[in-house]
Amino acid sequence: MPPLSDAPALKTLADRVRPVDRRAGDATRAYLDTLTKPPGSLGDLEALAVQLGEITGQAKPEVTPPACIVFAADHGVAAEGVSAFDQEVTAQMVANFAAGGAAINAFARCIDARLEVVDVGVAGDMADTGTADNPVVNAKIRRGTGNILTEPAMSCEEAVAALDAGAQAASRALDAGCRCLIVGEMGIANTTAASAMLAVLTGHPVSGVVGTGTGISSAGLSHKVSVIERAIEARWMDVSNPLDVLANVGGLEIGAMAGAYLAGAARGVPCLVDGFIATVAALLACELCPEVRGYLIFGHRSEEPGHDVALEALDAAPLLALGMRLGEGSGAALAFPLLDAACAMLREMATFADAGVDDSRS
Amino acid sequence: MPPLSDAPALKTLADRVRPVDRRAGDATRAYLDTLTKPPGSLGDLEALAVQLGEITGQAKPEVTPPACIVFAADHGVAAEGVSAFDQEVTAQMVANFAAGGAAINAFARCIDARLEVVDVGVAGDMADTGTADNPVVNAKIRRGTGNILTEPAMSCEEAVAALDAGAQAASRALDAGCRCLIVGEMGIANTTAASAMLAVLTGHPVSGVVGTGTGISSAGLSHKVSVIERAIEARWMDVSNPLDVLANVGGLEIGAMAGAYLAGAARGVPCLVDGFIATVAALLACELCPEVRGYLIFGHRSEEPGHDVALEALDAAPLLALGMRLGEGSGAALAFPLLDAACAMLREMATFADAGVDDSRS
Repeated sequence: MPPLSDAPALKTLADRVRPVDRRAGDATRAYLDTLTKPPGSLGDLEALAVQLGEITGQAKPEVTPPACIVFAADHGVAAEGVSAFDQEVTAQMVANFAAGGAAINAFARCIDARLEVVDVGVAGDMADTGTADNPVVNAKIRRGTGNILTEPAMSCEEAVAALDAGAQAASRALDAGCRCLIVGEMGIANTTAASAMLAVLTGHPVSGVVGTGTGISSAGLSHKVSVIERAIEARWMDVSNPLDVLANVGGLEIGAMAGAYLAGAARGVPCLVDGFIATVAALLACELCPEVRGYLIFGHRSEEPGHDVALEALDAAPLLALGMRLGEGSGAALAFPLLDAACAMLREMATFADAGVDDSRS
Repeated sequence: MPPLSDAPALKTLADRVRPVDRRAGDATRAYLDTLTKPPGSLGDLEALAVQLGEITGQAKPEVTPPACIVFAADHGVAAEGVSAFDQEVTAQMVANFAAGGAAINAFARCIDARLEVVDVGVAGDMADTGTADNPVVNAKIRRGTGNILTEPAMSCEEAVAALDAGAQAASRALDAGCRCLIVGEMGIANTTAASAMLAVLTGHPVSGVVGTGTGISSAGLSHKVSVIERAIEARWMDVSNPLDVLANVGGLEIGAMAGAYLAGAARGVPCLVDGFIATVAALLACELCPEVRGYLIFGHRSEEPGHDVALEALDAAPLLALGMRLGEGSGAALAFPLLDAACAMLREMATFADAGVDDSRS
């Protein structure tokens, strides 16, 4: 059974994702060598410009303004003591986002991003709907996932709804004129869900994809590995069906992130992927629709050990490596100025011919 | 003889460089752990915030607006065919800077930087003095250095004048209100001069510090190594006196960059170091005045192999590694948004107490 056959809205979305435009990328590559710099001397920034050409089909792509979308949800497995923080912190951090006081608020302001926080499954009521600058959208699907040690995280219908909520958030941002998606998350215990999904989707041993998350002890780490191993063992899922994996051991915000990537790719805009959880969501999106991969740009390499495994599964090399492990979209937001600079390079640099610089090489 | 005893203006400048404020850095470190994020989860950005605290002595440091200063000069050794480009390209690229068409122009605009190009030794006449946005300042000390294979690059007086021209340019930027210095260079054959200086200053074999620069062939690389080895052999210099090393095998723009770092440190502002040549200039500044080191932030790791040697000599780890090798200050300019984000983190993030987020750890 094809994964999306029972989810017609998602199937329509996935069908809209076209392969990126390799010819536009080739044209960008050739144009870069006419600009006043030694060929290839801007390194990864040139590769980034080529990818932006492929994604947008434009000779002079633009990525401003960007959108930061933070999906928040809770995880029933938090009851097993797999996180350094209590479940209540998810709702408290959403309130912090709404008040503009979290890292992603500060970083979004640095890059003049449109910020939206989307509650797709916070356990508590979110009375505060945020401010004009930091709105909190209520798209709650359920009050946290089930504890995956004893029950599926969610039903298949809820998994589809999570993807759809993410796609809708992406559409709101793109309809508002944003030209790059930065997708983040908040959810106490969501490294547990992401590690479980990654182990199932890649066949990698659980112990190799689990880290300390927000900061558990080494004893806590062993416990976390054990919880995930037992949860995977206890669930009855079709490991070749990514939606079933999401429903059994995933998270509502992880599904929403994947939906946002699908929608961004369908609209032909670059999606800047954050750290570990975002990359697992990206892997989910690519398993549902492989053409999404060409639209993904990887912002940073997280300290969370599973991130390397997820990156390898996607053959991805992030732009930054700053030893970060926060989430919220923070690492992707920090990488955004490199996309902006790559566009400026294509838009503003003179060619050798225009500038009267001699490019005959000795 | 202490290196600066015969250069009273430089000695005065060096004497003004105070050690960075470790207590302010400690206070920043403690404050970071009160902010709404898991302790240490912003990785190198937290270390950067601590260093900005040390440099400025401020709890809420600011780095905007930044200044980009590009020093340009020619090198007599270009006559030996050590570069992929002809000497005339230096002047042509200065004209390109003046017209706003080079990479550093585009990147400086991305970060709203004040840009100034300073001719400290271009061989040709620079009729164009640029525009209001891209001024070219005439501070020409001589028309290119001597060919170091047959004569010293410059006299000791000219070396001091180069440092002084750099210090004056930095002062202009700081007097105009800039709060971070990004220093770049343009000079055909200047990787040859920088490699020679680095080999002499560190005692490292020439073959280990020489790369292809703007793109010479492997045969050209062997020739470049040979030219540098013979030049060092032919020069009579006091290797323990960095000014003498600059005068014998260095470059006017390299001296100017070192002067800018000295002046930036003396005024207590962060200096964002670019790639290989900039790091050799930074090494020169630190040899003249070791307290400068605390004010230096390293922007990116260049592809030029000598860069690793220079970074190691300064115990420095750059923020970015993008496979770049352009110069002009381009890599430092791309790293600047990370400094801006580190300041935003300190300035705008809420504390656990203020945000009502529970930071008791399980």
